[in-house]
Amino acid sequence: MRVVHVPLGERSYSIWIGPGLLPQLGARCAALGLGRRCAVITDRRVLPLHARNALHSLQQSGFEPALITMPAGEPAKCLPTVQACCNRLAQHRLERQSFIVALGGGVVGDLAGFVAATYLRGVPFVQVPTTLLAQVDSSVGGKVGVNLGAAKNLVGAFHQPRLVLCDLDTLRTLPPREFRAGLAEVIKYGIIADARLFRRLERDLPRLLALQPATLAAVVARCCEIKAGVVARDETETGLRAILNFGHTIGHALEATAGYGAYLHGEAIAIGQVAAAWLSAWTLDFSVADVRRITALFERAGLPTGVRLKPTQQQQLLAAMRLDKKVSGGTARFVLARQLGAAARDQRVPDHLVLKALLTQPPTPH
Amino acid sequence: MRVVHVPLGERSYSIWIGPGLLPQLGARCAALGLGRRCAVITDRRVLPLHARNALHSLQQSGFEPALITMPAGEPAKCLPTVQACCNRLAQHRLERQSFIVALGGGVVGDLAGFVAATYLRGVPFVQVPTTLLAQVDSSVGGKVGVNLGAAKNLVGAFHQPRLVLCDLDTLRTLPPREFRAGLAEVIKYGIIADARLFRRLERDLPRLLALQPATLAAVVARCCEIKAGVVARDETETGLRAILNFGHTIGHALEATAGYGAYLHGEAIAIGQVAAAWLSAWTLDFSVADVRRITALFERAGLPTGVRLKPTQQQQLLAAMRLDKKVSGGTARFVLARQLGAAARDQRVPDHLVLKALLTQPPTPH
Repeated sequence: MRVVHVPLGERSYSIWIGPGLLPQLGARCAALGLGRRCAVITDRRVLPLHARNALHSLQQSGFEPALITMPAGEPAKCLPTVQACCNRLAQHRLERQSFIVALGGGVVGDLAGFVAATYLRGVPFVQVPTTLLAQVDSSVGGKVGVNLGAAKNLVGAFHQPRLVLCDLDTLRTLPPREFRAGLAEVIKYGIIADARLFRRLERDLPRLLALQPATLAAVVARCCEIKAGVVARDETETGLRAILNFGHTIGHALEATAGYGAYLHGEAIAIGQVAAAWLSAWTLDFSVADVRRITALFERAGLPTGVRLKPTQQQQLLAAMRLDKKVSGGTARFVLARQLGAAARDQRVPDHLVLKALLTQPPTPH
Repeated sequence: MRVVHVPLGERSYSIWIGPGLLPQLGARCAALGLGRRCAVITDRRVLPLHARNALHSLQQSGFEPALITMPAGEPAKCLPTVQACCNRLAQHRLERQSFIVALGGGVVGDLAGFVAATYLRGVPFVQVPTTLLAQVDSSVGGKVGVNLGAAKNLVGAFHQPRLVLCDLDTLRTLPPREFRAGLAEVIKYGIIADARLFRRLERDLPRLLALQPATLAAVVARCCEIKAGVVARDETETGLRAILNFGHTIGHALEATAGYGAYLHGEAIAIGQVAAAWLSAWTLDFSVADVRRITALFERAGLPTGVRLKPTQQQQLLAAMRLDKKVSGGTARFVLARQLGAAARDQRVPDHLVLKALLTQPPTPH
């Protein structure tokens, strides 16, 4: 088992990474000194896989968990679901010392985290991410929120979890497409912060795809470490933290344009990262050879790297980008890379280059 | 003009109190160095009274304000209204440097503040309270939120304003019943924190009811000072801040039981404060003579001090109290008073005493 500490003063917490952690949920929550009442928020897909284990572990440790199930998928990450969850919390009489466990992927974590951030103006919460994407990214750092129509995460908060449990066993129940989508964020950490991790991924990809435990634990822990380091230096995204959005400005816009469900988040940001790599090559002397290495790694991971867009879709995509939270003075700012392992934030890029970058890569059959 | 400073480190701000302040809104916002785009959130009742002045002042200072109008009244303080406001903010392309102006009473301030706390995970906001209640209470301190069905403020956040402008001229457009309801919070500050203020209110009540400018300015400023002092010592209500809830546990439950609209908030907490005063007399040796002074002052202010409740309503009221955010371990904790000007928080009181306190005072015709 590996432990990554996220140093945020009185909001510090630890991320536990390893197999067999879900059965320890109750004991680890007990160590935090929280109230007895709690709620496990999960979705219909995760419910049959892991909810019983989570509830059992909590009950064994003397907690009184309510189970709240939301529909699976991005459309449920919305204010009406927040309202439904809060109504259930009120029925279950959750108090300020009570806590919420987010059991599931990024959608569950973001929504349950926002519920925890706002219910009674904030109650503690615990993340139990069950997807690779959530383990290496969304469960760490305290960004929580919901979508507003097509605009992703437009309503949200910063609310740090008290504990993150990444049980690697849960990844065995993940559909292969979801696992590969998670690799898009893993590869991102190599590009923006750690060339050595990138080379390791080039070498160990087959072991990762085979869920080889030691490789998986080391890679997930390294990603959490990188994210924790960035978050510790910029908790509320006033600067540095933006580098975590490499590939995301285009990726989010692509998700909004294509309609939720056409792409998994990881797939959209794979395309976004390849486009961002091209933009980096054209505007920052990023090596074209490394653009090709990035593209090749995404392809080996089974992720899309290009997209075909009709002219109307191109305009929709540019419009969606302008709705991005990172917009300032009406212009989207991009995170690019100076070289493998070194991000450059706050880069202005003209619209026509963005479209050119997206169209440079041949569309991936989808 | 008076200025009260709220010292909260990097979240510090000032409250400006005086006549003729609304026309200075734009200039004072300009001094904060915020983005050009902004939104004024108001309700249908305040719209015809003050919205034009606010928009004009902002435009004069070079801002581009959008106007968002919500229905007036407590039922609109809910998540669907938050969603509607956020949709409008997205249409108007508000960015992280953009800001929101809350123009209205407590309902508008709480809702607009929650929108500001969550839109893009938080944008700056400015409070322009137009009721006495909002000027002395809800606009100061950063508590924002919405109701969840009958449970008041169950979903919310702590989000400090960047500036509060209390234009005393706006109180001249307030229905007399609303003004008197605001006096309930004013009297509360005397009871919990400042016996001298209480005596001043006993003496100057006629001048206050006549909106005599110097008296009004001095009293509003003193209330803001007391609240600012409490908030500065306990921003997120982990302890001391609870004293501001004197009369509120019962008052909120009364509002929930009677149905929104039956009582104004100030009326409900007037009844709640008289009951809390009786509880203080029975459990903490608070002087019965002072209970009578408190009751008399509320009566002179035209506020209700007692209520008639059927047995089923009594049970509903107790149930509603258990939903209060200040519940811990299943028991509501009360704020009581040891003497005039000195609050005692975290007091447990058995249900039968709560009902006895409510029924001690003859019901006020309503």
